[in-house]
Amino acid sequence: MTDPLALGSTIGILGGGQLGRMLSVAAARLGFKTHIFEPGANPPAGHVADAVTTASYEDADALRSFAAACDVVTFEFENVPTAALDLIEAQVPIRPGREALRISQDRLTEKEFLQGLGLTVAPFADVSDAAAMATAVGKIGAPSILKTRRFGYDGKGQARLRTPDDADQAFADMNGAPAVLEGFVDFTHEVSVIAARSPAGDVACYDPGENVHRDGILHSTTVPANLTSSQRMDAVLLAAKVLNALDYVGVLGVELFVTRQGLIVNEIAPRVHNSGHWTQNGCTVDQFEQHIRAITGWPLGDGSRHADVVMENLIGDDMDRVPALAAEKDTALHLYGKAEVKAGRKMGHVNRITR
Amino acid sequence: MTDPLALGSTIGILGGGQLGRMLSVAAARLGFKTHIFEPGANPPAGHVADAVTTASYEDADALRSFAAACDVVTFEFENVPTAALDLIEAQVPIRPGREALRISQDRLTEKEFLQGLGLTVAPFADVSDAAAMATAVGKIGAPSILKTRRFGYDGKGQARLRTPDDADQAFADMNGAPAVLEGFVDFTHEVSVIAARSPAGDVACYDPGENVHRDGILHSTTVPANLTSSQRMDAVLLAAKVLNALDYVGVLGVELFVTRQGLIVNEIAPRVHNSGHWTQNGCTVDQFEQHIRAITGWPLGDGSRHADVVMENLIGDDMDRVPALAAEKDTALHLYGKAEVKAGRKMGHVNRITR
Repeated sequence: MTDPLALGSTIGILGGGQLGRMLSVAAARLGFKTHIFEPGANPPAGHVADAVTTASYEDADALRSFAAACDVVTFEFENVPTAALDLIEAQVPIRPGREALRISQDRLTEKEFLQGLGLTVAPFADVSDAAAMATAVGKIGAPSILKTRRFGYDGKGQARLRTPDDADQAFADMNGAPAVLEGFVDFTHEVSVIAARSPAGDVACYDPGENVHRDGILHSTTVPANLTSSQRMDAVLLAAKVLNALDYVGVLGVELFVTRQGLIVNEIAPRVHNSGHWTQNGCTVDQFEQHIRAITGWPLGDGSRHADVVMENLIGDDMDRVPALAAEKDTALHLYGKAEVKAGRKMGHVNRITR
Repeated sequence: MTDPLALGSTIGILGGGQLGRMLSVAAARLGFKTHIFEPGANPPAGHVADAVTTASYEDADALRSFAAACDVVTFEFENVPTAALDLIEAQVPIRPGREALRISQDRLTEKEFLQGLGLTVAPFADVSDAAAMATAVGKIGAPSILKTRRFGYDGKGQARLRTPDDADQAFADMNGAPAVLEGFVDFTHEVSVIAARSPAGDVACYDPGENVHRDGILHSTTVPANLTSSQRMDAVLLAAKVLNALDYVGVLGVELFVTRQGLIVNEIAPRVHNSGHWTQNGCTVDQFEQHIRAITGWPLGDGSRHADVVMENLIGDDMDRVPALAAEKDTALHLYGKAEVKAGRKMGHVNRITR
């Protein structure tokens, strides 16, 4: 697939949550159809998609039919089972590519990859068993955080070590899953860069956003971020380095800690990213459309920022505030159409134009 | 339905073209589902809707099932057959209401309604038969335009009279359909106001746009329009007068001729309007979301303009320009996903941010 994908082609999306939903809307804006693959019933993305396959990632027939119906396949989350990807890729290209997925699916592999590029990451140690845990605590110390190597998101699969005495409990919390112990980083704040790369190697970055987390979940992203112009340049160059090293096609999120010693890479996500939702109301072409443009071989769009924006996630009971938010000036609501409100569940977000 | 419609409710949309498509996306952004009713196969709106009914407006069973699946019904075009509306309205509210449809479906009724409000319209005369045509030409003269009373759009169902000698041909062109002869208006340019009214009677207007037509079809809309501040105020007050007189709920488009003697109302459209597409990239809340907010009883959103925009329609072969347009700076593409390119067919539009 070197030519741009023709108008009216079908983009397959693995995962039917809010990211798939907003990707689907962006694809439609460019005249593409979307087909959602999602095990769960009534997926939010299904409300705005041309077709939905409701099936498990173990259902080979469903995966093959899905792949046959699509001209390119992308995903809204990085933990798609490898066997499912193998089946799909035998029939249709997957973008971004498998290498980006392989690396980002495993915290240890990811950190070694980033270090290999000459980027700075937090001190870390592999924790494959109890003996390794003791060694890791000796090397990294405390405070530190033990994180499962795979399948972690929104603070899940993590345990804090306030002192080395917390090591046994933290290790037990992993339930035997391979993990990584990460050392404490003395950062002033966290920023992220949402970057895109086309098949031709063109790179475009959005202005970095400043993130605030609560209870391990992103609470807000503010643009512009509090960064010096040289930090801003470092952040963008660093994201471009990651994209090029992976021969990446699509949008990638890079989370960075800002420290007195420079920028430290927290993690990368090979997909559109919650901290890029502000682009919907701050740019002519948002991160979702940029991803669609990249994976279809269309020219990357103009991602320059035309407004100051504060994005705030609406989580669980925040939905009670929707009537008031709907009446606020300079405020754009984006709700995900999820049937049930649950504590900790991302239900929507607002983008407030602040200037 | 006095309380706001609950999140997750279903909005029925009569008509599956580009307006239904963009309404569907806006509804999803607020957490609603949509159900499209459209006789034609593969409607553009169906690509981004939760459900589609493909059936004729004469299919009573299909209309009843559709109505039963919806919590409120709206429409993307004003020529929905009356019997279909009667069937639907027996089960579920239709917004905007029937009165607005009744008036805007008939050019003669519309002109009499507007005159009754004290607004200025072009000189006009009823042409129900050949004798009435002769009388009308005597009264209105030429140049003038003969237009069918019903089912006209994008310049269809119209015939020009350059001199009174063209009267017979123009009358023949109507194929016996009741018509209205409209006198020549010496206008400098055309503007339109996109206005919204909530069930509670709140009114919000977008900044007027300046329209250029080619071959009877809208070519471009530019905001801000070339208007004095008193003209701007007149335009907005006039739109509000129409909305209030109709006890209107939803978005309405009002086309105005700007003349040395003041503003003359060309026509009203009881729906989102092509000349309001610029709001997608010029406002925090666009005309499609504003319509959804109004018909669901949600608070009207902030429609203040934050950019200068030129909207240009992509018609027929304009689609050949898409690759170049996709690479333009400050340009947002909106394509409708129509399967076939035809001469005169609206295929998409671009919004160019000019400041």
